[in-house]
Amino acid sequence: MEHTQSALITNVNYYAGPAAASALAQDGYRLLCHDASFVEPSARAAFCDAHPGHIALAEQSPDDVVRAALTHTGVLDTIISNDYVAPPRSRMSLTDATAADIREMFEVLTIYPYLLLKAAIEPMRVAAAGGTIIFITSGNAKRPSGNTPVYGPARAATTALVESAAKTLTRDGIYLYAIGPNFFQHEPHFPAGKWEADDALREQVDREVPLGRLGSQAEMGALIAFLASRRAVPTAGQFLAFGGAYLP
Amino acid sequence: MEHTQSALITNVNYYAGPAAASALAQDGYRLLCHDASFVEPSARAAFCDAHPGHIALAEQSPDDVVRAALTHTGVLDTIISNDYVAPPRSRMSLTDATAADIREMFEVLTIYPYLLLKAAIEPMRVAAAGGTIIFITSGNAKRPSGNTPVYGPARAATTALVESAAKTLTRDGIYLYAIGPNFFQHEPHFPAGKWEADDALREQVDREVPLGRLGSQAEMGALIAFLASRRAVPTAGQFLAFGGAYLP
Amino acid sequence: MEHTQSALITNVNYYAGPAAASALAQDGYRLLCHDASFVEPSARAAFCDAHPGHIALAEQSPDDVVRAALTHTGVLDTIISNDYVAPPRSRMSLTDATAADIREMFEVLTIYPYLLLKAAIEPMRVAAAGGTIIFITSGNAKRPSGNTPVYGPARAATTALVESAAKTLTRDGIYLYAIGPNFFQHEPHFPAGKWEADDALREQVDREVPLGRLGSQAEMGALIAFLASRRAVPTAGQFLAFGGAYLP
Amino acid sequence: MEHTQSALITNVNYYAGPAAASALAQDGYRLLCHDASFVEPSARAAFCDAHPGHIALAEQSPDDVVRAALTHTGVLDTIISNDYVAPPRSRMSLTDATAADIREMFEVLTIYPYLLLKAAIEPMRVAAAGGTIIFITSGNAKRPSGNTPVYGPARAATTALVESAAKTLTRDGIYLYAIGPNFFQHEPHFPAGKWEADDALREQVDREVPLGRLGSQAEMGALIAFLASRRAVPTAGQFLAFGGAYLP
Repeated sequence: MEHTQSALITNVNYYAGPAAASALAQDGYRLLCHDASFVEPSARAAFCDAHPGHIALAEQSPDDVVRAALTHTGVLDTIISNDYVAPPRSRMSLTDATAADIREMFEVLTIYPYLLLKAAIEPMRVAAAGGTIIFITSGNAKRPSGNTPVYGPARAATTALVESAAKTLTRDGIYLYAIGPNFFQHEPHFPAGKWEADDALREQVDREVPLGRLGSQAEMGALIAFLASRRAVPTAGQFLAFGGAYLP
Repeated sequence: MEHTQSALITNVNYYAGPAAASALAQDGYRLLCHDASFVEPSARAAFCDAHPGHIALAEQSPDDVVRAALTHTGVLDTIISNDYVAPPRSRMSLTDATAADIREMFEVLTIYPYLLLKAAIEPMRVAAAGGTIIFITSGNAKRPSGNTPVYGPARAATTALVESAAKTLTRDGIYLYAIGPNFFQHEPHFPAGKWEADDALREQVDREVPLGRLGSQAEMGALIAFLASRRAVPTAGQFLAFGGAYLP
Repeated sequence: MEHTQSALITNVNYYAGPAAASALAQDGYRLLCHDASFVEPSARAAFCDAHPGHIALAEQSPDDVVRAALTHTGVLDTIISNDYVAPPRSRMSLTDATAADIREMFEVLTIYPYLLLKAAIEPMRVAAAGGTIIFITSGNAKRPSGNTPVYGPARAATTALVESAAKTLTRDGIYLYAIGPNFFQHEPHFPAGKWEADDALREQVDREVPLGRLGSQAEMGALIAFLASRRAVPTAGQFLAFGGAYLP
Repeated sequence: MEHTQSALITNVNYYAGPAAASALAQDGYRLLCHDASFVEPSARAAFCDAHPGHIALAEQSPDDVVRAALTHTGVLDTIISNDYVAPPRSRMSLTDATAADIREMFEVLTIYPYLLLKAAIEPMRVAAAGGTIIFITSGNAKRPSGNTPVYGPARAATTALVESAAKTLTRDGIYLYAIGPNFFQHEPHFPAGKWEADDALREQVDREVPLGRLGSQAEMGALIAFLASRRAVPTAGQFLAFGGAYLP
């Protein structure tokens, strides 16, 4: 690919956002960044000061975000669809969750990525270089947990979207992936130092995570950058667990 | 269980509804039946004439349906959550589907079963005999198809709901199952005789379905009745493929 | 099926053997029973005294067992391939297991069922009524455990055999199933009362088994008898977890 | 890792062997290579002439191969366990396969990798840098095919070995992976140009492989080198499909 590559990252300040931004910037991508906070000009300015060369988008809807990104770069090589709902919200039970809560969870974790994908298909299809879209979902998508009866199924739906849509889009040069973190270190909800300091969590990691620690942002970034490089596209359409051998 | 058992069946005229009604009636259940058409008194009357002893509920929302059913029987032993979206709607592509279409698919195939489950938990938890809830989803929930990028993930979400919620509800004596049909004979969308008469479908069945034919309503009914009997509750929380060895 | 149905059960005294024998006898099957102890005439005599009407076969190799069974009944409607390796042997680690240990584990849990299936195909193919073969494997086949790196993969292979062979044999009227127990009460290795009396096991069941108890022989028998009844053959080719919602 | 890294590749002339050798050599690894042909000194000499710097091992048993490799390098950072059985042997049916054929298939595809892993554990455990072992299995391990009832389950067992052993070995700094190719270009059995020239195969690729072509050696090498780099070890213990979105 001869042009400078460009990547769009949603929710760049959360979950796998910092990982993706750091790793793709290091690989020379031009970065278009979405974040809910970027409706505020001051938040955009602060982000751009801290990350020279990155573009902070004010837009929020999937259509607007993709359109705005394309205005800057003309083409989008890579999209990191990076959505997150933090505990305790991610752990709401069926009895506590209202109908509105359930719809909202699916809106954030499922419908938004659907619409982002829809908005990206046509521009990526016509681009000479095709495209890569990596959806950050969750290990809960593949191994159900009793604690996340609303969050988990919403993640499962988005993971199934990747697996289903890859059956057709791979043919068009659009490569989809789902990465499913468990026990992943991310700010502000699962910060560095947290599991070491939290006895219950440390005991859980000891018992359930063969790696014996949380996965790091640098490791997530390396995985994202490798998939984005398209050096191994026969792996397209897959869910990749990122949980220190917690799965399967 | 000493009382006459009762079962609620949603969309009783479609998909696995007739199968469930016939098999459970034969096993002596008192049947409470929902159908979209039952908002019309004449439709309820016609149904009750054709199926003496069955109760046709006018109610439509999950909460209302469960409440109305309980008014009749006091207790609900079994629920068949039986939702369906027919082709060509089930096969809408990502580019054709609008945001409203996607939300509607999840509303019908995912949110409705969520709310039905929510409404059933408390009455089943307090009932001495517990309860069984069987969600009819689709084989697409486990083996993604390129043809169903909206329908399939909505089915995957509901199947994941079963797997997740079973982790807690099984402990309360509420046994959840997902049945995933493929190549299942049902009126009016996949009627008896259709595959034999449709060359393309027959060729597909020959190639993809080791059973060499569609699964029947009687076979679906037998499976539902067996699960409802609770004679093998250690199988709770599982997805059961019903597609003639098409899966896995 | 107009003839009295016949079923062959291997290792009838262990694992799911008593479950299968009791349930199928109750459904009127004529039972042909294999057990390693049956090389001794006294063991056969004792078994037949305790279970009037059952036939105890002295034969041991898969070919001989099937041939001997057919000598008695002419046709075999159902086979329960029921192999087991008890702890601590099932839990041998990679470093402790010798090459001979690994080969022996696969010989018992994988090769024996392969050869039993091979021996059964032709007689079942020519029989008017076809056949059903149920392989009792383990939940470890689908959710890997760190404790069983030799036992688990041998179970996975046999489960994969079912899933693969069903793709062709279903077409011939031979219906294959794998049942995967976890936390299943069976003599003498996991006897009734054991988990209640064993603090560590009870704590594990509390934590990992949503059903909150072991699955019983009666429940296993009900599942086996249902599958053997062929009332729902579109479920053929499937793995059915039997572990109180421990899986998936 | 400060030392020059070393990698052992089995069956270096087949399947993913050339891919692994080329990619790891490019990343600066010192390569220890096994091949069945290397019992002949002339074959070793020819290989070393063609690949300067690579070491051709005469040894054949898993223990001998690992011991010989360690004699050269003192430490083994990476092992590529690369076993293959070509069609038509991989497609033998249950009725054609003899007991000896089945045992041989498991010996080649399952027992050999087991013993290679066993031989590697202790040296990797004591090495400061730990180790990575990548098992090349098959997509058949996860999606069963009716054509491969012996080959497929042997692949499933080795894949299950990876998933099970990773639960303990990850903790020791030994990172296991299974890569499952389908529609992968490799010499001499699935050579470049073959699918384009073979009408039946091309039609199958068109229908079943969303990527629309075979995966290449360069792409397989890129995947292997990325996993060997240990830049994303939270992905350890996973099966990675490499089949152009044929799976799941």
